[in-house]
Amino acid sequence: MNAIGVDVGGTKIAAGVVTPEGEILEEVRYPTPHSPGTLIDNIFKAIKEVGDGHEVGGTCLAVPGFVLAHENRVVFSPNLHAVEGIPLKGELEPKIGLPLTIENDANAAAWGEFRFGAGSEVDHLVFVTLGTGIGGGVITHGVLMRGAQGSGGELGHVTIQATGPRCACGNHGCLEALASGTAIGRRARELAIETPDSALGRLATKRQILGEDVTELAREGDGVALSVLEESGRWLGVGLAGFVNIFNPEVVAVGGGAMEAGELILEAARKEVVLRARSPSRDLAEVKVATLGPKSGLLGAAALARDASSSGEYLLGA
Amino acid sequence: MNAIGVDVGGTKIAAGVVTPEGEILEEVRYPTPHSPGTLIDNIFKAIKEVGDGHEVGGTCLAVPGFVLAHENRVVFSPNLHAVEGIPLKGELEPKIGLPLTIENDANAAAWGEFRFGAGSEVDHLVFVTLGTGIGGGVITHGVLMRGAQGSGGELGHVTIQATGPRCACGNHGCLEALASGTAIGRRARELAIETPDSALGRLATKRQILGEDVTELAREGDGVALSVLEESGRWLGVGLAGFVNIFNPEVVAVGGGAMEAGELILEAARKEVVLRARSPSRDLAEVKVATLGPKSGLLGAAALARDASSSGEYLLGA
Repeated sequence: MNAIGVDVGGTKIAAGVVTPEGEILEEVRYPTPHSPGTLIDNIFKAIKEVGDGHEVGGTCLAVPGFVLAHENRVVFSPNLHAVEGIPLKGELEPKIGLPLTIENDANAAAWGEFRFGAGSEVDHLVFVTLGTGIGGGVITHGVLMRGAQGSGGELGHVTIQATGPRCACGNHGCLEALASGTAIGRRARELAIETPDSALGRLATKRQILGEDVTELAREGDGVALSVLEESGRWLGVGLAGFVNIFNPEVVAVGGGAMEAGELILEAARKEVVLRARSPSRDLAEVKVATLGPKSGLLGAAALARDASSSGEYLLGA
Repeated sequence: MNAIGVDVGGTKIAAGVVTPEGEILEEVRYPTPHSPGTLIDNIFKAIKEVGDGHEVGGTCLAVPGFVLAHENRVVFSPNLHAVEGIPLKGELEPKIGLPLTIENDANAAAWGEFRFGAGSEVDHLVFVTLGTGIGGGVITHGVLMRGAQGSGGELGHVTIQATGPRCACGNHGCLEALASGTAIGRRARELAIETPDSALGRLATKRQILGEDVTELAREGDGVALSVLEESGRWLGVGLAGFVNIFNPEVVAVGGGAMEAGELILEAARKEVVLRARSPSRDLAEVKVATLGPKSGLLGAAALARDASSSGEYLLGA
């Protein structure tokens, strides 16, 4: 049975009808309004429009933030405050007439990679998404690790340097504070001041440097930009090494916007994993780029919707 | 059906016949020989002796070190080299005529606490054992998290301060390197030199200070000893905060020899969890002392043996 996956992002809502094999039959996009009422309206319109004319068994929303599963609501969403606390399931389910579940976006993306992408041939997958922040999702023994409330898998908010820089979450030295796209941009701006003759330094005289500039300049061979990505990759590796020892996964897949830099980050991360993780876990774990790109959330949400309806239960509580 | 749990420790082998309710009907102890052949002999004798006259459905060995589950062997065991690589299952199973499984000792202890102790009323438990080293075991969604090879749950070997002290595993800044009983003893010896007039300083002139001395002097009110435990508790809390965000458990239970210090360590750890973990996970997680003490490994192993035989499969492969 087909299912609808909805990826509710900070700027757009993407909804798609997806087959059990992971093929997207139809997809629509709506802007993400930042008022709660209009947000629900646009999610409804997206589901209605994309589902029209398709036989569909269920739908799942992938939303940013900490999901409180039993209450089917988002507790805290730093990049989409409009979604906090609103009754998504209660409002939407009666209108669309389909079982509706809610999942954290990184957990949904992890499930997408597990069903159709980098983890499709294994039972244990650690998925990390490097973007503005760092999200995560873990599959162990074939099960999405949600935790008691559905808030598990927050791999970006794990301390890897207790005395490190402050994180958006309030903690110090989180993986996110040291290896996210935001951290890459910040570090590049620091180094640009120290190296005014580098390509990075010259760009900094014109405008503010962003994470994506660093990747572009690194690809063009700028040594300073390359060193920023390598440093970020090492920090990422510190976190991944811990996850390898904790989860003993076959695959560690890294996705998100910052993975435009691909091997420029991952090569350094792998070295750090070899240094810091232990056998046999470190020998097994393959650290690689996730394969579904920006579609992982939508595909994962659809798969979760189907997995929920086929087992006859809502995945995320009554 | 009763089952036999065997806790293979660095100094003794404890075997017990355990009921489904977690009552130990009979228990025997043998010394742990440090040659492979004699080690297998003594495990066999312990199982044979304790099981005599009891109806028993299966047995499980809780062993220190990294377990490679599909091959039923221990890959690396820093405190019991004799157990590395030896064919425990192949040698023992035919002789005892019972299904035999092998599990990492901290994983077994976690399962014991989950079935009969601190986690018996929840579905998600993080168990950390503070001793010479730091071990861990995690139950999520009611399942023991073993990972792909059975080496998962190594919570002591997660980097919490990348630039921190070297760990026994070779990495720098592991939780174990900063918060284990060994780390407590080392920090106490450092501070004893700086504070010759403290009780700790005076003891240091007589003999080498051990972790247990610190607890004793702290209980007697020595400020320096108290500060060592508080500092260790804070480091423990840095690690636990990450586990709370990763696993979203109802209970975090801390056991092991260093928990003689109990609240002198845990109070500081809880404060750090509140500072570093995020809602809703941090509001849910109860950080407490494990309740089974040194019996957790034996009880957990017996429960694993029974859970394996009742489901008709060996828990640990083939």
